[in-house]
Amino acid sequence: MIKTAVVGYGYWGPNLVRNFAESGRTTVVGVSDLREDRLVAAQRRFPGIKATNDAAELINDPNVDAVAISTPVSSHFDLAMAALKAGKHVLVEKPITSTSEQALRLMDEAAKRRLTLMVDHTFVYTGAVRKIRDLVQSNDLGDILYYDSVRVNLGLFQRDVDVIWDLAVHDLSIMNYVLDSRALAVTATGMSHVNNGPENIAYLTVFCGGNLIGHVNVNWLSPVKLRRTLIGGSRKMIVYDDMENSEKVKVYDKGITINGNPETTYQAMIGYRSGDMYAPQLEVTEALNVELRHFADCVESGATPITGGQAGLAVVQILEAATRSMRNRGQLIEINQPPMGAVA
Amino acid sequence: MIKTAVVGYGYWGPNLVRNFAESGRTTVVGVSDLREDRLVAAQRRFPGIKATNDAAELINDPNVDAVAISTPVSSHFDLAMAALKAGKHVLVEKPITSTSEQALRLMDEAAKRRLTLMVDHTFVYTGAVRKIRDLVQSNDLGDILYYDSVRVNLGLFQRDVDVIWDLAVHDLSIMNYVLDSRALAVTATGMSHVNNGPENIAYLTVFCGGNLIGHVNVNWLSPVKLRRTLIGGSRKMIVYDDMENSEKVKVYDKGITINGNPETTYQAMIGYRSGDMYAPQLEVTEALNVELRHFADCVESGATPITGGQAGLAVVQILEAATRSMRNRGQLIEINQPPMGAVA
Amino acid sequence: MIKTAVVGYGYWGPNLVRNFAESGRTTVVGVSDLREDRLVAAQRRFPGIKATNDAAELINDPNVDAVAISTPVSSHFDLAMAALKAGKHVLVEKPITSTSEQALRLMDEAAKRRLTLMVDHTFVYTGAVRKIRDLVQSNDLGDILYYDSVRVNLGLFQRDVDVIWDLAVHDLSIMNYVLDSRALAVTATGMSHVNNGPENIAYLTVFCGGNLIGHVNVNWLSPVKLRRTLIGGSRKMIVYDDMENSEKVKVYDKGITINGNPETTYQAMIGYRSGDMYAPQLEVTEALNVELRHFADCVESGATPITGGQAGLAVVQILEAATRSMRNRGQLIEINQPPMGAVA
Amino acid sequence: MIKTAVVGYGYWGPNLVRNFAESGRTTVVGVSDLREDRLVAAQRRFPGIKATNDAAELINDPNVDAVAISTPVSSHFDLAMAALKAGKHVLVEKPITSTSEQALRLMDEAAKRRLTLMVDHTFVYTGAVRKIRDLVQSNDLGDILYYDSVRVNLGLFQRDVDVIWDLAVHDLSIMNYVLDSRALAVTATGMSHVNNGPENIAYLTVFCGGNLIGHVNVNWLSPVKLRRTLIGGSRKMIVYDDMENSEKVKVYDKGITINGNPETTYQAMIGYRSGDMYAPQLEVTEALNVELRHFADCVESGATPITGGQAGLAVVQILEAATRSMRNRGQLIEINQPPMGAVA
Repeated sequence: MIKTAVVGYGYWGPNLVRNFAESGRTTVVGVSDLREDRLVAAQRRFPGIKATNDAAELINDPNVDAVAISTPVSSHFDLAMAALKAGKHVLVEKPITSTSEQALRLMDEAAKRRLTLMVDHTFVYTGAVRKIRDLVQSNDLGDILYYDSVRVNLGLFQRDVDVIWDLAVHDLSIMNYVLDSRALAVTATGMSHVNNGPENIAYLTVFCGGNLIGHVNVNWLSPVKLRRTLIGGSRKMIVYDDMENSEKVKVYDKGITINGNPETTYQAMIGYRSGDMYAPQLEVTEALNVELRHFADCVESGATPITGGQAGLAVVQILEAATRSMRNRGQLIEINQPPMGAVA
Repeated sequence: MIKTAVVGYGYWGPNLVRNFAESGRTTVVGVSDLREDRLVAAQRRFPGIKATNDAAELINDPNVDAVAISTPVSSHFDLAMAALKAGKHVLVEKPITSTSEQALRLMDEAAKRRLTLMVDHTFVYTGAVRKIRDLVQSNDLGDILYYDSVRVNLGLFQRDVDVIWDLAVHDLSIMNYVLDSRALAVTATGMSHVNNGPENIAYLTVFCGGNLIGHVNVNWLSPVKLRRTLIGGSRKMIVYDDMENSEKVKVYDKGITINGNPETTYQAMIGYRSGDMYAPQLEVTEALNVELRHFADCVESGATPITGGQAGLAVVQILEAATRSMRNRGQLIEINQPPMGAVA
Repeated sequence: MIKTAVVGYGYWGPNLVRNFAESGRTTVVGVSDLREDRLVAAQRRFPGIKATNDAAELINDPNVDAVAISTPVSSHFDLAMAALKAGKHVLVEKPITSTSEQALRLMDEAAKRRLTLMVDHTFVYTGAVRKIRDLVQSNDLGDILYYDSVRVNLGLFQRDVDVIWDLAVHDLSIMNYVLDSRALAVTATGMSHVNNGPENIAYLTVFCGGNLIGHVNVNWLSPVKLRRTLIGGSRKMIVYDDMENSEKVKVYDKGITINGNPETTYQAMIGYRSGDMYAPQLEVTEALNVELRHFADCVESGATPITGGQAGLAVVQILEAATRSMRNRGQLIEINQPPMGAVA
Repeated sequence: MIKTAVVGYGYWGPNLVRNFAESGRTTVVGVSDLREDRLVAAQRRFPGIKATNDAAELINDPNVDAVAISTPVSSHFDLAMAALKAGKHVLVEKPITSTSEQALRLMDEAAKRRLTLMVDHTFVYTGAVRKIRDLVQSNDLGDILYYDSVRVNLGLFQRDVDVIWDLAVHDLSIMNYVLDSRALAVTATGMSHVNNGPENIAYLTVFCGGNLIGHVNVNWLSPVKLRRTLIGGSRKMIVYDDMENSEKVKVYDKGITINGNPETTYQAMIGYRSGDMYAPQLEVTEALNVELRHFADCVESGATPITGGQAGLAVVQILEAATRSMRNRGQLIEINQPPMGAVA
């Protein structure tokens, strides 16, 4: 059993504690938070767990094997670095850090010490996203032409990060996972509707090379909650709607066929295919449960997590580029990614 | 009764002929098309109407008062200019012309000859869009913060225009009409998935001044048909879903309230309001019927149409800027609009 | 070309005329209606067709091969019998007659004269219903366990027939067609909410033998329009939602499995299967077009129509029983059907 | 603080324990269940609570003020009677008992001892149902004409009760609460698709006097989960869809108007009104939390619960009649209800 500590008991922390406690692979030794009322809540819910307002106490506790960090983004780097230096395996809330440079430093430290560094890209562990990856990787969709996602709702406005860092991070982690794509350049626009607040509405285009284009629409000020992604392939296409109670993933046998005869008119050249739609049965295990078992596997075997430092870094690079582009009203920002596999 | 001729009997032409025939204010004298089979179809459906492959024959027919043009975009200017020069009132399919310079020239010619020049921005005449304009103009929504539209489906790929000119033209005409806004700058991205074909997927951001931002997502290669617009106001917000059989327009009494106390934390500063939603009853008269009666009114009274040359020009300016931006991967393009009302 | 006449130019008549005119197999010689304004409308829409207020004129016209009857139900029998006696093939609006006895007499007359007698059960000719029949007949669903249909909307209240005869007739014709089932007994309840008017809301249960049960919920006073049928099979199940723009038919690989071990508890005995769902591509040809081509085939070949007199009779027998049961607050009414195939 | 014990820790028991623990008005002293693994689960989840396989131990514990019973229906009466005789207040899972005679005996016992007897008709305490009651009671809908409910899904097949006692109980408790109606007669049909099992599909019609008709469609063997109720009023109509994430209740300003002129035709007599729809904002507190606070109020004040013995009895009377009718293929069963208010 891997003994864990959870730093930060806000919105997401209780889910981490509950799942660490019930995973069968891990136990929870302690919880820390700066707010007294959150510590009281933690102890009422999980009697017998140490609760402290001093994260360092947990990080340096020799009885702790791994530290999970679910605090505001700006504190991720310092806490994760301290935990790695104390010899702990680390799971960090998304996004992994505030800058790509910080992510690289964590990756180096973890590699040097042979510790597991993992980022909590939760959606990657859902039955829906894993099924989509299977469909894409098996070439069932043909060549992927576009990835188009909408993630909007009312609230929660953040102060320290804009809507891209809060919401688009999900879409980018999913897109990177299912497509195995590399973002080469980004352009983004957005707007703040609160004085001095960060942008609460934003639109990102991601150029991935070839004719693959990604787009993400995020908004904290929408009257309705939408979570819908279209993935267009040359053979089939997917609609992934996370608001559906069932049938979250629909696969459409639809597309165009191009008749190569240059003598025909343009419209005659293009045919439209429309076949059956099907919604595959999805695994329904809670994503966080799947994720924490994977974390335990990696800690025990030394394997690289699916959502390791590299995955965290790749997302932060796009977020950095997007925010910079947005501040310059859509200026194209190239991304210089380190070669895949250069660091683990 | 205004005697009309319809030039172009393709996809939209039959709707024009039928509505001109049944409006009670207009009659149809003749139809022209370059394709013999289309002329046969027109005559089978509307016996007694002159059918010709020579548009000039109708344009110069002294028995014709007005000419409706529903041909490919590239021919709009020449046909409309010829009709105006022949002293005919003109209704042109959207977009009004291929360039803003052409639109200005048609506007000048119509003004000089005191003829009606109208562009067929059909959606402006639907019950849904007119209701939305009422809600916006009455300040029911408060300040408008964003306009976010999705218009995607499978097909019909065009050769002579990209997806922006084919689909986004609808959203831009609606946005301009309901918001009375002025696009100041545009950035757009897109992609073609057919060799040498125009872009079939595109994303536009429109900056309208202040903190009002518009966005349009258009796609010819989507597995599902979506027609959904979110309009965010400081007081209320609208979801306009044209795929709904009824309740196309929903008004949400939702939003944020900003507590000015700078002493509180950022999150405490922002409150979320959530009240009733309502779906106003909409007028269900066919939009084209409403539009053609308005055309008849303008012809008879000399009044400026709601969708006159100015409205057509404003849309073409955004389309031009968007395509130019898209070809430069999101480069910001400023729009220098003539002052409102300078030309009719 | 089969020369047809259409008696009755109300709500449905124009669709009949248009489809007879465009089927490529039939032409329209004349239209009759008792109302002068309907005749004017017919002539404006279809110039060149004879319009008369005297149905007998068409029925006895030697130039007419077939007569389509789309008048109120109470007149179906007299008009159809007159047409058969005049040697015409007959297509009658649904339900075929007001009583099963009338239906039997029409069937006899048609058989004696070797004329085609067909009832316009339009839904049977839709791509959706034909696909459902294929799925059922191929045993893809396993044994059929239930058929549960809802058909509700606001209006149109009828005076001469109750809501069962107006709406449930559709469901019963579909159920009989896809299941090849025989209704053995019926119980129905309902209510009128208009003084002296027929029932505007009704619920029918149809016992079909074995453990197959049918149910139909019809209502003229619903705030929303619903058209949804569930068909439960021992292997798979169908949801048929006619209000869906696409994906009208969904096939669910869901059900229960019964573990025969009597030692286990009851709940352990029953397992729940949940697999993929798929929505087959449907043929989109207008149903009436398919139907009229089938009518032409039968007229020419002498074959028995899919929706011949027997199909019309079987539905009327259920309608009769249902109304009788409803007037007696759910009393069970047995149906004595003639043996299948006794009459054509 | 009211000290409670929960008898039965199966599907619903954990929700009772959690809400009793967090209500702020009650505490949980102990939990009992016959199954050892359920007791282990209870203790893991709620350390510090007594867990026993002997319900009598809790019922007779002088430290317990109130007992909540969430066991199979057949045991409700014995357990509740024992608890009342031990001087405890009682909350019983729905339906309150297996027979109306049992319900009357519990009511008598509770009245004699001045103890609170309440049945857990949970839906009555949802924001949606309370809002619907407000709308009906304020006469916003006009006269209520019908109540039409569908509650279908796949599973969970029961052995000891049929689908009416398992699912329709919800609809009947809601209907009785929002309409203040009295069922006068019932007719029901149904079918079992498992050998020797109770009916898994059923249809009930409830006659409530005047022209008010109720209907409930319940099914354990549906491929999709539906929870939808239509309530028709003479002025307005409601659609209550519990599967909606938001906007569960929609109020339609729709209906018919009857023109009294007997000279006009029947169809001219009836006009169709179609106005706005609105979805009122609903309170989102968890229903069980609202319910348990109401239970605490009643225990402390001696007031009669909204869902007291009388409400429980009224539902059981309909269930009894429905099952009897179903076994006789729809035979009408009259209900002889005791006069309202005769017993508390």
